Amino acid sequence: MAHTQMLEAYPKDMGGIERDKLAKCIAACFECAQACTACADACLSEDKVADLTKCIRTDLDCADICIATGNALSRHTGYDANLTRALLEACATACRACGDECAQHAQMHEHCRICADACRRCEEACRALIAGL
Amino acid sequence: MAHTQMLEAYPKDMGGIERDKLAKCIAACFECAQACTACADACLSEDKVADLTKCIRTDLDCADICIATGNALSRHTGYDANLTRALLEACATACRACGDECAQHAQMHEHCRICADACRRCEEACRALIAGL
Amino acid sequence: MAHTQMLEAYPKDMGGIERDKLAKCIAACFECAQACTACADACLSEDKVADLTKCIRTDLDCADICIATGNALSRHTGYDANLTRALLEACATACRACGDECAQHAQMHEHCRICADACRRCEEACRALIAGL
Amino acid sequence: MAHTQMLEAYPKDMGGIERDKLAKCIAACFECAQACTACADACLSEDKVADLTKCIRTDLDCADICIATGNALSRHTGYDANLTRALLEACATACRACGDECAQHAQMHEHCRICADACRRCEEACRALIAGL
Repeated sequence: MAHTQMLEAYPKDMGGIERDKLAKCIAACFECAQACTACADACLSEDKVADLTKCIRTDLDCADICIATGNALSRHTGYDANLTRALLEACATACRACGDECAQHAQMHEHCRICADACRRCEEACRALIAGL
Repeated sequence: MAHTQMLEAYPKDMGGIERDKLAKCIAACFECAQACTACADACLSEDKVADLTKCIRTDLDCADICIATGNALSRHTGYDANLTRALLEACATACRACGDECAQHAQMHEHCRICADACRRCEEACRALIAGL
Repeated sequence: MAHTQMLEAYPKDMGGIERDKLAKCIAACFECAQACTACADACLSEDKVADLTKCIRTDLDCADICIATGNALSRHTGYDANLTRALLEACATACRACGDECAQHAQMHEHCRICADACRRCEEACRALIAGL
Repeated sequence: MAHTQMLEAYPKDMGGIERDKLAKCIAACFECAQACTACADACLSEDKVADLTKCIRTDLDCADICIATGNALSRHTGYDANLTRALLEACATACRACGDECAQHAQMHEHCRICADACRRCEEACRALIAGL
């Protein structure tokens, strides 16, 4: 995968961050962002969209913060542990909220089940990275 | 301004958030994102770009989180104070880091001075909003 | 406004692009992105959200391309007219689609009226910039 | 992969778009966005960053349009072939520009080689999708 190769190709020292956890978290952020964007749209197309408005909103927030976090984790120049932690905390919070919301509709809507799983993986990957900072 | 009109046009109750502070923070987030994107590029074009790599990186992170936060603050459906707070904390942290970094180059580079000011305004607007949550 | 100051602070030559039209287009892109994000959310909160799903989708696409275009227009290093034109064409297409869609609901929903106006302004600003490339 | 599962979980008809090509293009857009963001940062950390400023700029533009396009392709509600085409054209143009630029540094910098490959795959995936619209 390109993101793992990219970590290996970084020309300088990457600071204290653990490379395996970092690779996993980058992948999880982009996967979760895509899943949330797709889930928001799938919710839109459900006949009972009126019951899914909170889910759509949480999906959209989660997608936005996952992209911002995935981007920041893809940068290593001028590393700032304080900023990395704040982003990871926000991302984990959004993934928790979105995972919980989607989990409530997971039996009804397969897209919510897939999205909830992606949110759980991303939250876990963020928390694993925070623990090692 | 469209963002203020948009707040007034929201068809439902907006929860406990203070509308004036919210409008100010939305505007500050988008202004800061644009300033950071432009500052990163202006740094790139400086002859001494090698001295500005940390500044560029911080600009890029700050731009990303400001867009994510500005977007989330533009949504009111299914409001979640916990998530709003986490995003605002991350955004304020990024604005502080970027404002501090840019302030160090503000006398040499006008774009860093302008960007530092935008970061200060955005950090302040985020903290004002957090205080009222 | 920070984006105008930023254009003046750019340390190198900015290529053949017209600075006034550029400033206007950058502002229009970010304004339109925020309006589309807010309109999508306001649509979500309408009782008749089921009638507004196409509008929400078009809002979300338009917001994404407006941010991408506003960011690219905020960069001047290594200017590429070909790429700038392609982005402006895509942005103008999205603004036209979203403006047309929102205009259909403008009498019912004030947020759609505001958003349609922001889309029209952004489409016009993109086309004015394309004409001068 | 979540993005393939998501396509299968979409509850309505997806219009005339070919599902395999679509899945490939969504994955390529997000992969390319991440590679470009990481390549821009790796360039920043090179001792000869001054020789790579055009590369960094093209990386940043390409990352932005890839995310916008990947997001739009993840939505199927209210499908608009005209808008999809405009985004894919802009994305292919950016991937071509970034792939060409990175290819020039591919022998010197492994991150540019990886990024050029990701850009080529994404450009190809966009053009394959355009051909089937």
